[in-house]
Amino acid sequence: MTREVDPARVQEVLDGRWAHIRQAVRDRLGPEFVTVPGETGDQARERISRLIRELPTDVGVASAFPAAYGGSGDPGGSAVAAEMLAQVDLSLMVKAGVQWGLFGGAVVALGTAKHHDAYLRDIISADLMGCFAMTETGHGSDVQQLRTTCTYDPVSQTFDLHTPHQAARKDYIGNAARDGRMAVVFAQLITGGRRYGVHAWLVPIRDEQGNPMPGVTLGDAGAKAGLLGVDNGRISFDHVTVPREMLLDRYGQVAPDGTYSSSIENDTRRFFTMLGTLVRGRVTVGASASAATRSALTIAVRYGDARRQFTRPGDDREVVLNDYLAHQRKLLPALATTYAYAFAQEELVATLADVQGGVSGGTSGDAVDEHRQRELESRAAGLKAVQTWHATHTIQMCREACGGAGYLAENRLPGLKADTDVFTTFEGDNTVLLQLVAKGLLTGYRDAFGSLDGWGRATFVAEQVREMVLERTAARSLIQRLVGAVPGRDEEVAVTDRGWHLTVFEDREKHLLDGAIRRLRKGAATKKDRPFDIFNDVQDHVLKTATAHIDRITLEAFVAGIERTTDPAARELLSRVCDLYALSVIEAEKGWLMEHGRLTPARSKAVTAVVNDLLRELRPHMRTLVDAFAIPDAWLNAAILREEPGRQDAMAKEDDAVRAVPVG
Amino acid sequence: MTREVDPARVQEVLDGRWAHIRQAVRDRLGPEFVTVPGETGDQARERISRLIRELPTDVGVASAFPAAYGGSGDPGGSAVAAEMLAQVDLSLMVKAGVQWGLFGGAVVALGTAKHHDAYLRDIISADLMGCFAMTETGHGSDVQQLRTTCTYDPVSQTFDLHTPHQAARKDYIGNAARDGRMAVVFAQLITGGRRYGVHAWLVPIRDEQGNPMPGVTLGDAGAKAGLLGVDNGRISFDHVTVPREMLLDRYGQVAPDGTYSSSIENDTRRFFTMLGTLVRGRVTVGASASAATRSALTIAVRYGDARRQFTRPGDDREVVLNDYLAHQRKLLPALATTYAYAFAQEELVATLADVQGGVSGGTSGDAVDEHRQRELESRAAGLKAVQTWHATHTIQMCREACGGAGYLAENRLPGLKADTDVFTTFEGDNTVLLQLVAKGLLTGYRDAFGSLDGWGRATFVAEQVREMVLERTAARSLIQRLVGAVPGRDEEVAVTDRGWHLTVFEDREKHLLDGAIRRLRKGAATKKDRPFDIFNDVQDHVLKTATAHIDRITLEAFVAGIERTTDPAARELLSRVCDLYALSVIEAEKGWLMEHGRLTPARSKAVTAVVNDLLRELRPHMRTLVDAFAIPDAWLNAAILREEPGRQDAMAKEDDAVRAVPVG
Repeated sequence: MTREVDPARVQEVLDGRWAHIRQAVRDRLGPEFVTVPGETGDQARERISRLIRELPTDVGVASAFPAAYGGSGDPGGSAVAAEMLAQVDLSLMVKAGVQWGLFGGAVVALGTAKHHDAYLRDIISADLMGCFAMTETGHGSDVQQLRTTCTYDPVSQTFDLHTPHQAARKDYIGNAARDGRMAVVFAQLITGGRRYGVHAWLVPIRDEQGNPMPGVTLGDAGAKAGLLGVDNGRISFDHVTVPREMLLDRYGQVAPDGTYSSSIENDTRRFFTMLGTLVRGRVTVGASASAATRSALTIAVRYGDARRQFTRPGDDREVVLNDYLAHQRKLLPALATTYAYAFAQEELVATLADVQGGVSGGTSGDAVDEHRQRELESRAAGLKAVQTWHATHTIQMCREACGGAGYLAENRLPGLKADTDVFTTFEGDNTVLLQLVAKGLLTGYRDAFGSLDGWGRATFVAEQVREMVLERTAARSLIQRLVGAVPGRDEEVAVTDRGWHLTVFEDREKHLLDGAIRRLRKGAATKKDRPFDIFNDVQDHVLKTATAHIDRITLEAFVAGIERTTDPAARELLSRVCDLYALSVIEAEKGWLMEHGRLTPARSKAVTAVVNDLLRELRPHMRTLVDAFAIPDAWLNAAILREEPGRQDAMAKEDDAVRAVPVG
Repeated sequence: MTREVDPARVQEVLDGRWAHIRQAVRDRLGPEFVTVPGETGDQARERISRLIRELPTDVGVASAFPAAYGGSGDPGGSAVAAEMLAQVDLSLMVKAGVQWGLFGGAVVALGTAKHHDAYLRDIISADLMGCFAMTETGHGSDVQQLRTTCTYDPVSQTFDLHTPHQAARKDYIGNAARDGRMAVVFAQLITGGRRYGVHAWLVPIRDEQGNPMPGVTLGDAGAKAGLLGVDNGRISFDHVTVPREMLLDRYGQVAPDGTYSSSIENDTRRFFTMLGTLVRGRVTVGASASAATRSALTIAVRYGDARRQFTRPGDDREVVLNDYLAHQRKLLPALATTYAYAFAQEELVATLADVQGGVSGGTSGDAVDEHRQRELESRAAGLKAVQTWHATHTIQMCREACGGAGYLAENRLPGLKADTDVFTTFEGDNTVLLQLVAKGLLTGYRDAFGSLDGWGRATFVAEQVREMVLERTAARSLIQRLVGAVPGRDEEVAVTDRGWHLTVFEDREKHLLDGAIRRLRKGAATKKDRPFDIFNDVQDHVLKTATAHIDRITLEAFVAGIERTTDPAARELLSRVCDLYALSVIEAEKGWLMEHGRLTPARSKAVTAVVNDLLRELRPHMRTLVDAFAIPDAWLNAAILREEPGRQDAMAKEDDAVRAVPVG
């Protein structure tokens, strides 16, 4: 493809359904909101605490709240606004996410009218800053096993909130070290001498003067790799009295006499239903990781178009980095994958909006709704995992692609890397999340409600799994048509055939899933005395299955995105980028594909050759591809991108003067 | 393997030829030298500037200097001491590397007796702090093209040192922002109206009061991702007068009348001979990256043995992370690779000691010596690249393996990651270094002297390359015997057969190299009008060839290391670790191996199964493998490793009390 493409036409497709939110954030957040590289921890906390209150109200970050309290009941727009904030400053995004997403979101989703009436307005205005106190030092992934207890006493009609030991203290809690005045605290509910699993309470942790409330011990998590502007801290409770009505009682109630009631009988099911209402956090973290990735790629691609090193034979002017095949091999496949995730994320947010829209975090008991809610959770988990790992790898690569300049704070890459680093393990550890995705693919398990409970019920799973689930979600009929057009698995099909890509991705997922089920069944039969090993022995296989699933839905979303593109040149460009994405995955997985007869050695070599052809073909469009991300220069804020016009020419002239001196 | 292994027996093998240096550093550097996580940039600079003067003189960091001036002429010991320093504090290592390795090393290697007599004692004592001012903003990889000029004037008998434009300023220079009083400045030498290429001068940059010398402009590179204790800065020269005798004139002299003379006629050859004398920097950076990797792995493995998450079916106690296959898949192959590099590095340092030992950086004109010097440079480049990338990946993985705790500065992983990050691009960008390695493998090019000159002479190379060079360096006869015992390429050989591993590694290197030569020749014939494309079109292939070469010499070094191990249990353990290293590489390269008929699909699947078996087999030895690194607890200095005895038991008891409450 040789024709020029207008980045604005590509941007339209990327901006998608919430283009108005994206543009509003771009328009409204000026230089005063932009990251300040190299500031100290104290400076960063001070700045972010101030900015969180200065965020314009019309940019949508808090728009997921019910309209009755000043929100607009738009969870999709809220997720997109948070993603945009991540392109401005990741601390600001996380601080906003803690305040409005986690803290405010939990009050909305787990509380009832009395809590909403009392607190939501102050939460939205950030007059009441709060924490989401779930994670404990000893339990981050297995939150069903939290050790904090909250025991009801019918005599005083209050709860007793208590941290039994150091590993049960709340840890890494955003807003806890400095700004939080209340916290949604998750703890084991005990009443009438019985346990009812994890519930949440709204608990004051600081008074008006900022001093800890009686019985509450607050600590600072101290220096972190990044996110300097977020005041992560630790909270312990020494028999703190909590009034009965502070239980967020949407899913479980305690009567004055201590009687427990809930519309959901099973403790595990109830807890994961509660967690499910908070899925927006994961949706946002994945999106924010990709937003940061786009910033890093924009910096590296623009630098690689300006930076020259080593001369071309017979040419005095040195070669720009982006002309080197090795540099293209670094930047372009990462760029293609970033495009792919943008489309997958757009679809995920649309699902979020459809499932939660208007209901503000509610789930009805309806089976179809529950199925869609599970699917939303699974995709949110999977796309969070792959996007955050992609961010970690890509930002690292961009930093290296900028050489020594990439190591300087003034060029933003160190901050982008350090700030996003924690995304791979917070809001769910990526490895645990991929496990969750894999389980969601097993029919029996999905129906029986699995979520984050580790290997606990391995025998159950192994016995229940019946068949794999492969549901197309995007552009079903288009994809069916493309796949149907592929004449079997033979060598006649072009390596760039979209139907072939789709078939390979689908086939890989199916085969991995079938294999996992077969191995689990066999394990259940032969390792009855070692139930832990049934799952553990295939853990690597299970994780690969989850990745293959996410790869497939990502490719399908990309295909659907191209279908939505109306400008012919933009459409052609996106199609080549999609080729590169699909073939990069196939190239990376060629070992597995050959092992399983999905690829011949000759065709495998052809894939590598075609990837290199695509790099050459896309080279002239690298700048277009990052310009279409439409990140304002003020947000990028990278010193290496600020070049005075004419400076290069002036320097070239000086160089020519030296070169005119004859060699001795 | 089931028997227990004494870590001390493994440590002996790892400590190797310079065990006395390693132990001296362990004994002498107490808590006062240890990294302080979370300090500000100013605090870090202050501390490191102080510590560099307090380093005990008997730990060998400065031992490479000639005995006549107070050193011990032991470049190997000096490299090992620097590596050990990296385990204490990476800023301290880099500061020491700048002062004694780069600055002091350049004065030794490029200067002559008058310079040595005047400055070496003060350099060794750190009374005279100095910079190595080579890199410019515009030229980091292609240093032959530096833009700073130094022009001789026979009338005044002085040089005029000048920075012609902003891209020619010296950039990222250690010791420049704060402590440096002199600098070895690299610039284009011009005399008698002719250019003679890049030479070095010793130039004062600050006076006794710390103010910049006249005509010298000093700047601060500002906040960086890591290495906060190193004062990197920028230096520009505005027609600074430099006395004639300040030219470091070992390889090129300027007579009072301006006549230039050198024992090496060719400018390029002379410049790369000068650079070659400074190879110790690369040797040290690779080693330091691995030292940091060992620190990170020790923290992650020990945490993974203590941290529990999710319960095992039928067991109240939760499972330790290291028992999960996915966790083993992360930590153990990385650990095996770290062992492999330790042996390869030991051999590299031995080569350094043999080539440079006693001569202090000299190279005689002898062809055999030059061949060995080239080989040393190539291996230093290659092992620097693979070890620094391995560090970046592994430390990142360790940080993730420690979850949220891994993100806190108090647990050291953020610092280890950020400090080592720049290693992939300084002392030579890794991609450029691998190119250098690949060129070294082409006979014609190697003889004709290639080094870091990019693709400049592509046609030359393509025409000259004659055959590949495959020289065994470690344990030649042993490896020949092992390879000879493999009965061809069939499936009869066990996947764990060492001879098979060696054959696969060797075969891969040979085939890649042959293919690169074939493609270069073909390109030279068909792309005569596009000389840049001849090399650029095969750049990815060339880089893979270099990696395959380094993989092979690494495996051979590991095999030689096992051969040196006398304790039978330690030997058996190391042999399993070597299996895991070899099979991890084969697994990662299985796509290529199947494409080229080196591996059948069935055997490829068997490799994955055997890797998983090895993980199970090595699981009980994970702690032994990190204990053998013998890193003092005080150096590790990670809060998560400081657990009061009995605390876990006390907490388990409290948990039991809650668990005794019946479920509602």
